[in-house]
Amino acid sequence: MMTVAGAARLGGGTDTVSGLNPATGDTLSPTYRYGSATDVDDACAAAEDAVDPYRATTSGRRARFLETVAENLDALGETVVERAAAESGLPVARLTGELGRTIGQLRLFADVLREGSWADAHLDPALPHRTPLPRPDIRRRAVPLGPVAVFGASNFPLAFSVAGGDTASALAAGCPVVVKAHDAHPGTSEYVARAVVAAADATDMPAGVFSLLYGDGPALGTALVTDPRIAAVGFTGSRSAGTTLMRAAAGRPVPIPVYAEMSAVNPVFLLPGALAARGAELGRAFVDSLTLGAGQFCTNPGLIVAEEARGLDEFLDAAADAIAAAEPAPMLTPAIARNYAVGVDALATAAIEIARGPATDAPNVGRAALFAVDADAFLADPTLHDEVFGASALVVRCADANEREQVARALEGQLTATVHADATDRPTAGRLLEILERKAGRILFDGWPTGVEVGHAMVHGGPYPATSDGRSTSVGARAMDRFLRPVAYQNVPTDLLPSAIAEGNPDGIVRRVDGRFTRD
Amino acid sequence: MMTVAGAARLGGGTDTVSGLNPATGDTLSPTYRYGSATDVDDACAAAEDAVDPYRATTSGRRARFLETVAENLDALGETVVERAAAESGLPVARLTGELGRTIGQLRLFADVLREGSWADAHLDPALPHRTPLPRPDIRRRAVPLGPVAVFGASNFPLAFSVAGGDTASALAAGCPVVVKAHDAHPGTSEYVARAVVAAADATDMPAGVFSLLYGDGPALGTALVTDPRIAAVGFTGSRSAGTTLMRAAAGRPVPIPVYAEMSAVNPVFLLPGALAARGAELGRAFVDSLTLGAGQFCTNPGLIVAEEARGLDEFLDAAADAIAAAEPAPMLTPAIARNYAVGVDALATAAIEIARGPATDAPNVGRAALFAVDADAFLADPTLHDEVFGASALVVRCADANEREQVARALEGQLTATVHADATDRPTAGRLLEILERKAGRILFDGWPTGVEVGHAMVHGGPYPATSDGRSTSVGARAMDRFLRPVAYQNVPTDLLPSAIAEGNPDGIVRRVDGRFTRD
Repeated sequence: MMTVAGAARLGGGTDTVSGLNPATGDTLSPTYRYGSATDVDDACAAAEDAVDPYRATTSGRRARFLETVAENLDALGETVVERAAAESGLPVARLTGELGRTIGQLRLFADVLREGSWADAHLDPALPHRTPLPRPDIRRRAVPLGPVAVFGASNFPLAFSVAGGDTASALAAGCPVVVKAHDAHPGTSEYVARAVVAAADATDMPAGVFSLLYGDGPALGTALVTDPRIAAVGFTGSRSAGTTLMRAAAGRPVPIPVYAEMSAVNPVFLLPGALAARGAELGRAFVDSLTLGAGQFCTNPGLIVAEEARGLDEFLDAAADAIAAAEPAPMLTPAIARNYAVGVDALATAAIEIARGPATDAPNVGRAALFAVDADAFLADPTLHDEVFGASALVVRCADANEREQVARALEGQLTATVHADATDRPTAGRLLEILERKAGRILFDGWPTGVEVGHAMVHGGPYPATSDGRSTSVGARAMDRFLRPVAYQNVPTDLLPSAIAEGNPDGIVRRVDGRFTRD
Repeated sequence: MMTVAGAARLGGGTDTVSGLNPATGDTLSPTYRYGSATDVDDACAAAEDAVDPYRATTSGRRARFLETVAENLDALGETVVERAAAESGLPVARLTGELGRTIGQLRLFADVLREGSWADAHLDPALPHRTPLPRPDIRRRAVPLGPVAVFGASNFPLAFSVAGGDTASALAAGCPVVVKAHDAHPGTSEYVARAVVAAADATDMPAGVFSLLYGDGPALGTALVTDPRIAAVGFTGSRSAGTTLMRAAAGRPVPIPVYAEMSAVNPVFLLPGALAARGAELGRAFVDSLTLGAGQFCTNPGLIVAEEARGLDEFLDAAADAIAAAEPAPMLTPAIARNYAVGVDALATAAIEIARGPATDAPNVGRAALFAVDADAFLADPTLHDEVFGASALVVRCADANEREQVARALEGQLTATVHADATDRPTAGRLLEILERKAGRILFDGWPTGVEVGHAMVHGGPYPATSDGRSTSVGARAMDRFLRPVAYQNVPTDLLPSAIAEGNPDGIVRRVDGRFTRD
């Protein structure tokens, strides 16, 4: 089996990778040969060759391409879901949902492409009689950055991998994509890559618009990110790998943007009114969110901040019971299971254990875990702020609202922050909201952070280290913006203007004329 | 004389700076004392303290603040223009225009604030009956990043300095600003800073919303950019200083965005039809643009790319005559004049001299200069691609259209790219446009790049090294976006929602509901 680069098959390296079923420890066939440095070069060259023909395609044609990828994935259906389940240990039901989400994302970007406001079309018409100087005709549209390197994520074999959100949004923006397959799901990656390549062929896209490479993470990652033809990077993974890519990108002769989604503990604040009214219920719902997918969601709630007040004991008791009853689940890879165990051991030393999931002899299992510390200890020990990837959480016990706000202010950047509040919790909730607006990409009330809606208003991002670039979102319509930049056209002859900013609005899109929204 | 930090006066350092009139070599009084490390700390602490009260102000109040700054600058009028002329050697007429531009920018951002689409308001209403899962209510708006460090530019003592585009857009976005005064115009900086502080007082803004610091460039620059409270950086200046700030920002424990506008040669392509029709006229107009402000504009046309064809001799002859007749003008500072002389000497070694401006004994003068090389030499020598800041330009002589396109492809990122083309020059012009779309932030036809319109569609930016972040513009309405990031609000109680995304659209702004633009 070989790397898919454009329509060709590569695989010039000597090392290999195989899938591994974490639930059984079994190695899966076939074996995938890693690419060589030449393969990276070939894929980047093909992507660069594809830049001009691909960005010259109309939005409608790119939409059709994405929809065809979606159709091909839909047709793969159970085949790819079963392979992903074998390679990840995730339940079939979850992966069926994830496939649907992946298909839905591709279709969302097709819709966004046709709607057209992604092009950010502006027209400031000439004012030839303005004094003291006439105003030239100035127009603006968004253009694609160029080839994008995408790194498949361990925890979303479909939705954040080969044809996941980064790939879909980059392709929508008009950027060719070179994907590094995650070693944890080589077979899933191949299925999906073939679906993308078949769609590119069927819709007559240039060959280099998409490539998939297999290879050693750090070596291939660095080679891709430092290739002069790569113009931007999409990544979901660990803080250490993400910051390595950030440094590599910043150190290039021409630095490029990196969109790395890395690390978050997704704090949940339980305000006294809510806690008193439904402490036990919150405890159970919390553990449902915590243990979902063996706690391996980016938005997993890893930190609970609560006051010593009525309802906290009920919350802890109910959470402890739920954790003790949580069915052990395999983690995505043996390495992730080992790292989780190390992180939990460290918490066991620094904090008080509230509950552990059942012990088991099954391989690669991450036992759920709940710990508690008081606010002083949390504020004094930065290691307690770090994410432990998996179904482990820390409860920070605060003496009062003031201490709770101190904890909130001390947090690093987060993907999400959650508040459970009753009407009696105003205006405390309002003050907390103001603090959290500076910390998180998404703030939610009276829910749980797992489950990221794909839509127009969604933000899946947040200040560092949640992501490398808090100005962006990797989920939702706006994810495309990461791979675009604005260009102004001054007095460009009418017949040379791109359709998005041409006379008479041939694309029929919303544009801003002298700043006013119009379809004229 | 002392540093203005908030309403207080600081100046705890020991070194001092005075203005210097480059046209006469005279030192100007008074002397300004540099701030100390404590002053940097105080200014950043004051800015951080101002974050919450300032971002809580309504758009309308921030608009009034900016308009009051504009009014105060307008009232200063000749006083600040004369001081800027003495400190920069720039003509009073030019600086009067620049003051008008600075005032206009402040008023533009006030208008943009009131119009409201900067807030990027999105609402995806709840769908409680959606299957298989209900959709929560999700809204999005833009929030300010936090305190912004702004570096005054040597070449725009008003429009890109203390209350220039970076400051105006950051303040509009809701970010407190700490400005480093440029050593070349300490007195101008003080006048403008007092106008800003007076406006902040008059409109009841928090004290730390604005501070001005004087200090040694590298030391103060690094201290500001690495201060943990600074959340973003605006800079206009040299490539070496800009990349130093980029590295400092990327190396922080929490990296922050840097918007540095640095280096561009702003290529001008003369296509054969245009050259044949009006070679001499183009030559004269080119030199007008080249020598404007002694060539010290970011968008100064430093590279001409032309074919060996009819009209080129006329172009070169007319340009040479105009340069020989160009009145010598003082450069902004002695250091800039020295660097210019070094750059011109290097060109004189590597290229053929076409013309030089008149020799003079006046101090700090930059003599205009025009050189030529053939395309092979240009392609072989990367140093010929570098900006020489001042009224020096290089003509690249190409054998044919193919060679011209090779030159275009070999260019670094640019603020602008210009094409002079007649109807007979299609489709060559179209092919060139495609190449230039990947190189520049603004593409203009049949004009000259100096003169940057302030409006909605303008892009003053471009790929590295033109700027550190080609996804942004430092001029025009969109400049605010640099200092904002999106936050999603999921099921946030109605009474806690910010007005931009509240029920009933109390701000009366354009919002997107389920992706559709509406004022409902």
